[in-house]
Amino acid sequence: MEGELRKVKEYICTHKIKGAEYLQRLVQEGSVRGRESSAQAIIIEKCRELGLKMDIWELDKKELIDHPAFCSDRGEFAGNPNVVGVLAGTGGGKSLILNGHIDVVPVGDLSSWEHDPFSGLIKDGKLYGRGSTDMKGGTVSILLAMEAIIHSGIRLKGDVIFQSVIEEESGGAGTLAAVLRGYKADGAIIPEPTNMKLFPKQQGSMWFRINVKGKQAHGGTRYEGVSAIEKAEQLLRGIRELETKRNQHIKDPLFASIPIPIPINIGRIHSGDWPSSVPDLAVIEGRMGVAPEETTEEAKQQMEEMVQKVAKLDQWLKDNPPNVEWFGARWLPGDLEVDHELVSVLQKSFEQVKGNLPVIEASPWATDGGILNKVGGVPVVVFGPGVTKMAHDANEYIILEDVFETAEIIALAILNWCGIE
Amino acid sequence: MEGELRKVKEYICTHKIKGAEYLQRLVQEGSVRGRESSAQAIIIEKCRELGLKMDIWELDKKELIDHPAFCSDRGEFAGNPNVVGVLAGTGGGKSLILNGHIDVVPVGDLSSWEHDPFSGLIKDGKLYGRGSTDMKGGTVSILLAMEAIIHSGIRLKGDVIFQSVIEEESGGAGTLAAVLRGYKADGAIIPEPTNMKLFPKQQGSMWFRINVKGKQAHGGTRYEGVSAIEKAEQLLRGIRELETKRNQHIKDPLFASIPIPIPINIGRIHSGDWPSSVPDLAVIEGRMGVAPEETTEEAKQQMEEMVQKVAKLDQWLKDNPPNVEWFGARWLPGDLEVDHELVSVLQKSFEQVKGNLPVIEASPWATDGGILNKVGGVPVVVFGPGVTKMAHDANEYIILEDVFETAEIIALAILNWCGIE
Repeated sequence: MEGELRKVKEYICTHKIKGAEYLQRLVQEGSVRGRESSAQAIIIEKCRELGLKMDIWELDKKELIDHPAFCSDRGEFAGNPNVVGVLAGTGGGKSLILNGHIDVVPVGDLSSWEHDPFSGLIKDGKLYGRGSTDMKGGTVSILLAMEAIIHSGIRLKGDVIFQSVIEEESGGAGTLAAVLRGYKADGAIIPEPTNMKLFPKQQGSMWFRINVKGKQAHGGTRYEGVSAIEKAEQLLRGIRELETKRNQHIKDPLFASIPIPIPINIGRIHSGDWPSSVPDLAVIEGRMGVAPEETTEEAKQQMEEMVQKVAKLDQWLKDNPPNVEWFGARWLPGDLEVDHELVSVLQKSFEQVKGNLPVIEASPWATDGGILNKVGGVPVVVFGPGVTKMAHDANEYIILEDVFETAEIIALAILNWCGIE
Repeated sequence: MEGELRKVKEYICTHKIKGAEYLQRLVQEGSVRGRESSAQAIIIEKCRELGLKMDIWELDKKELIDHPAFCSDRGEFAGNPNVVGVLAGTGGGKSLILNGHIDVVPVGDLSSWEHDPFSGLIKDGKLYGRGSTDMKGGTVSILLAMEAIIHSGIRLKGDVIFQSVIEEESGGAGTLAAVLRGYKADGAIIPEPTNMKLFPKQQGSMWFRINVKGKQAHGGTRYEGVSAIEKAEQLLRGIRELETKRNQHIKDPLFASIPIPIPINIGRIHSGDWPSSVPDLAVIEGRMGVAPEETTEEAKQQMEEMVQKVAKLDQWLKDNPPNVEWFGARWLPGDLEVDHELVSVLQKSFEQVKGNLPVIEASPWATDGGILNKVGGVPVVVFGPGVTKMAHDANEYIILEDVFETAEIIALAILNWCGIE
């Protein structure tokens, strides 16, 4: 094993520039939802170079739509495929899924970015751009790990199944499609931006929409109307109170150092279309965190009860009750016991490379790990190089050295988990 | 004069059905901004029938843009003309402008409407639809008044200048263009929806936009970001406090029975584009009322000082100060002494028709009267049949009988003001 370790380490060490350039190309293909194909093409190119057995397919909504875990408001998947590349083992070893998503969230307010969000600019050891941290950097880590093993001439016993999926940011239809296509394994690593922490448990989450009615009037006689914005402010306060209450109940030590273990994020409020009119509709949209041990149904009920409670305290809202919709994305929570072998293997590999033990926590966000775990029955650890707080932020970046260290740790974990000839 | 009065009264009485049908046709042409032409065509048809001397022209932005009262973010005026029709007097009388705007505000949330917003449905003596009250009903009143005078064979001494203008709801560029084209007179009546009250003074108003910055983050680690929505809520409270403060200073008896004499309406808030992201920008838009005796500059300064004050109390806002823009529409206030002859003439005509004295108040909103008054130097009274509280509201309607009574009152006022041969 010593020789293999040395070879893998050396390969990664001598391929950092190429790895950074590859990540740069991936980031420059701004693969926001519905425009994932050009970034997937770069992934396919690399998988072909590595001689993986390829499976490239477009999601079929008709096949997915009746599955209880399917959750997508996307009309059309054509032209933006899922990509799977399998490195077949010689047999007798444990199989491993390495899963990354290719889709990135929108860039938000452009004026908050110092550079073009898809520049891929490298500066002070960091690579900048939407998707660098979430999670193209992680995808490069796993591809580099596989490349190092393949080019070092190492033959694995177990299969390694590389997946580059779409739709993670909108509810996981890409990974669900891969599970339903038959891709399962003895374990899975998802290199989402954990700051190189190990997350055996992951928070689930769901999107909600609250529609709040008002009554139109001319702004000059605004007292004749009812402002949907003012009424919505009562619900914003209600949401924050519910978040506080829910988080007081979280006692799992894996959440101990997380300021808000299961946040409720208010991501969007839109109300009104004319400065001189009293707005008659406000729409609040957000994301509700779900605890690993909680069902999505339990969480939904708490939100709906809160809305009813707020409405009871206001005559207008009592007569015009706001309604809650659960729309768009939903991610199942993931739950793996901390003493599972996959956790130990990753922990040991981490120690070998970094010289210290990793932090083990519950994730502050959901990943496709929930689907792999709850639908596919696959034990999942989320572990990756990205900077958690930069995910979805303007000026998103990743520290390139973390990408390479993660590649090394994952390469070691592959050798230990899959076994070598 | 008795004979003329009777003829006019009788003409209006026997043309109520036709008048209602004409208003219905006008409402059915939903003349929202940029789509005013088909409603103007119906106006032109009527003016031609009446034998008025027509002037139909498209606004020329190049000619208007340098005027200090010009205020429009509209790129293109082509295809949607202003219409003026003059009934020339025989000489020696006072001239009168009768001004109505053809543009209507957007319909807002469609689900709040019981019928198609442009149905023109007539039920229980009311005619429904966007623009019925604000202000096609008023326009029909003045056209019917003129029609009654013309068909009764009465010859006026002074000119009557009928105007159907665009852009009132967005800052008054239509009326400004008419003033700059040379249309001035000894007096003007604007039949905006005053509930048949007389408004010799009108509140001015301006549109504002406040941009509030936040800091993006993933919703699952929302504590890494700063919510632009939460920061915007502080400014919403600040705006309401400023409104309270400003209105405590209003002592003019014409405002005595108005709940909020110069309201600040928050018409729009938009923030965020992704439920799972912390929003990094919130945009608040609204309309600030300006007192008749106040300058727009004084009002602007109070708003800007409030924003600075709110920002001082919050470290984030201190470091990322929100900025105030004055955009889009601005209406000048109007100010006519209550004992002006135009007020007395209208008051007397009102009493003759209704048997009681009209309510005289300050208007809760601005009209094109501000431009006619402050730019054109024309004494203006706003007086019309529409239901004030239904302006800009869903299910907007007008009471048809009010349209006909107003027509009669205005016809009498024309006879008294312009004089007859």
